[in-house]
Amino acid sequence: MNLAKRIALVVLCVASLALPAFAVDPLPSWNDTAPKKAIVSFVDRVTKEGSPDYVPMAERIATFDQDGTLWAEQPMYFQFFFALDRVKALAPRHPEWKEKEPFASLLKGDVKGALKGGERAMLEIVMATHAGMTTEEFAQTVKDWIATARHPKTGRPYTEMVYQPMLELLTYLRANGFKTYIVSGGGIEFMRPWTGKVYGIPPEQVIGSSIKTKFEVRDGKPVLVRLPEIDFIDDKEGKPIAINQHVGRRPIAAFGNSDGDLQMLQWTTAGSGTRFALLVHHTDAEREWAYGRASSIGRLDMALDEAQAKGWTVADMKNDWKIIFPFELPK
Amino acid sequence: MNLAKRIALVVLCVASLALPAFAVDPLPSWNDTAPKKAIVSFVDRVTKEGSPDYVPMAERIATFDQDGTLWAEQPMYFQFFFALDRVKALAPRHPEWKEKEPFASLLKGDVKGALKGGERAMLEIVMATHAGMTTEEFAQTVKDWIATARHPKTGRPYTEMVYQPMLELLTYLRANGFKTYIVSGGGIEFMRPWTGKVYGIPPEQVIGSSIKTKFEVRDGKPVLVRLPEIDFIDDKEGKPIAINQHVGRRPIAAFGNSDGDLQMLQWTTAGSGTRFALLVHHTDAEREWAYGRASSIGRLDMALDEAQAKGWTVADMKNDWKIIFPFELPK
Repeated sequence: MNLAKRIALVVLCVASLALPAFAVDPLPSWNDTAPKKAIVSFVDRVTKEGSPDYVPMAERIATFDQDGTLWAEQPMYFQFFFALDRVKALAPRHPEWKEKEPFASLLKGDVKGALKGGERAMLEIVMATHAGMTTEEFAQTVKDWIATARHPKTGRPYTEMVYQPMLELLTYLRANGFKTYIVSGGGIEFMRPWTGKVYGIPPEQVIGSSIKTKFEVRDGKPVLVRLPEIDFIDDKEGKPIAINQHVGRRPIAAFGNSDGDLQMLQWTTAGSGTRFALLVHHTDAEREWAYGRASSIGRLDMALDEAQAKGWTVADMKNDWKIIFPFELPK
Repeated sequence: MNLAKRIALVVLCVASLALPAFAVDPLPSWNDTAPKKAIVSFVDRVTKEGSPDYVPMAERIATFDQDGTLWAEQPMYFQFFFALDRVKALAPRHPEWKEKEPFASLLKGDVKGALKGGERAMLEIVMATHAGMTTEEFAQTVKDWIATARHPKTGRPYTEMVYQPMLELLTYLRANGFKTYIVSGGGIEFMRPWTGKVYGIPPEQVIGSSIKTKFEVRDGKPVLVRLPEIDFIDDKEGKPIAINQHVGRRPIAAFGNSDGDLQMLQWTTAGSGTRFALLVHHTDAEREWAYGRASSIGRLDMALDEAQAKGWTVADMKNDWKIIFPFELPK
């Protein structure tokens, strides 16, 4: 350390002596209702040295679902809008799509018609748009799209459709020594190019669904080529399996919003010691969307029953969140 | 922060002003030959702010093979000794093994005979000893074994058969803001229970081969059960694939010792900016083992040619390492 840095450090240290003893509210977009109190109480207990609930810093792992938990997922998963835009962009190279489902319907703007083919149609769309290029080419495509695409309802970039209370929660947990992970059914390589900037979560802490890749040397340069073959679906039972594979530790806190997160919350709360599980409940049709037990996207049914039975925390968007999106914040 | 802590911090800060300007040798077990100079020069360049080779801390990823790079691998991979010990321990529960290869030969102490069945025999031994229990049960079995098993030649615990120069290198890189990963052909769940203690590498930075797991709720408690089915082989082309999957960033430095590491080193050095690749060459029959181009374990042939062609660093154990194992250090 050079002298200037050392002096700066000492000045910082001395300044810290002068800090007021009261703390700034770390979760200002949360109402002072039960969920906020439960979060703060949990964090206090696991971080207080000497407390029976104390957890060493290295073991403070918190996992977050993404769609519907960190950002919105209506009227459909944002990654599906990416796939639709890619179908349009790639169509000139695929004249055969004009006659071939599900692409023909998609290109006419008929999403419902395209999805009549069910899971198989969905898979064909994903593979046609997510495979066949190198990992670096795909990352660049995602970066270009996320920088320019707009949500059909709000006209906002998708990265502004994130939940302000959850951004505060991520920061609050990290300030208390937690390592925050995303564990999403979405594509791992669809998320990694931008999660650092948007959530402060680096690529190595992003877990998701994946397709297989192949190592190849092209013109003397090694590349990884994305193959049209599913590798792993990071949903439901897949979430604890992927957490074990990527992290090798059981989280002490997990956050989700749908039945796809149930097993992650079960796995997290079944560990010994103090554990925390929270479900975001979409109850605000005015500021966001209201959906749950009967929704095809983000269905929250079995997990809500289990939350009630086991005393997990449920954050009711309408009642518990002062602000939903960052763009609602006063300028 | 309470007052006592703040005062302690200020004292620490002021003390740092008084530190001497010269540095202690961070790699005392390395001779002052070319490899050590190459390592130090690389680290200086990527960490010096304003240098054209500067790499931000978040991107300082270094990956290490394990067998033959961080610990020894002769007379055979240590994980195979674990499997043999497990066959013996499990034999009373498997009376049929007395008549069934490869177990019958193993139980008579005839490893060569057991391995006559080739890859299929090896796979049967691995599955019989590594699958069929929960992840937590397996981790406990590994912990018990690693605490008590002894190397057949040295009589030392396997965790003492690690390379002192590589331990110093791991510490040196981390002190310079690197995140150090293990990327091994060995089993990911065989390594994770002890790599934190031995190498300072936490489970989430350990990548390896894996078998599939299944999420199950047993008596109301969720568990992950290890299945007798290969999930991923983290060797050769598998290493860059797994690094991409787990880390999502290309390393800037990679360390290996065999042809199994070739693709990891190719992938690492093909990135833009300054990159570093090093091979440990086992040349010391007296203090360790001497093997390479013709060895069935840790064969170093194609990778050695490529190192010479591309100017990668080769650490010759006999000439470049003062000390091999920590137990050689003066008390």
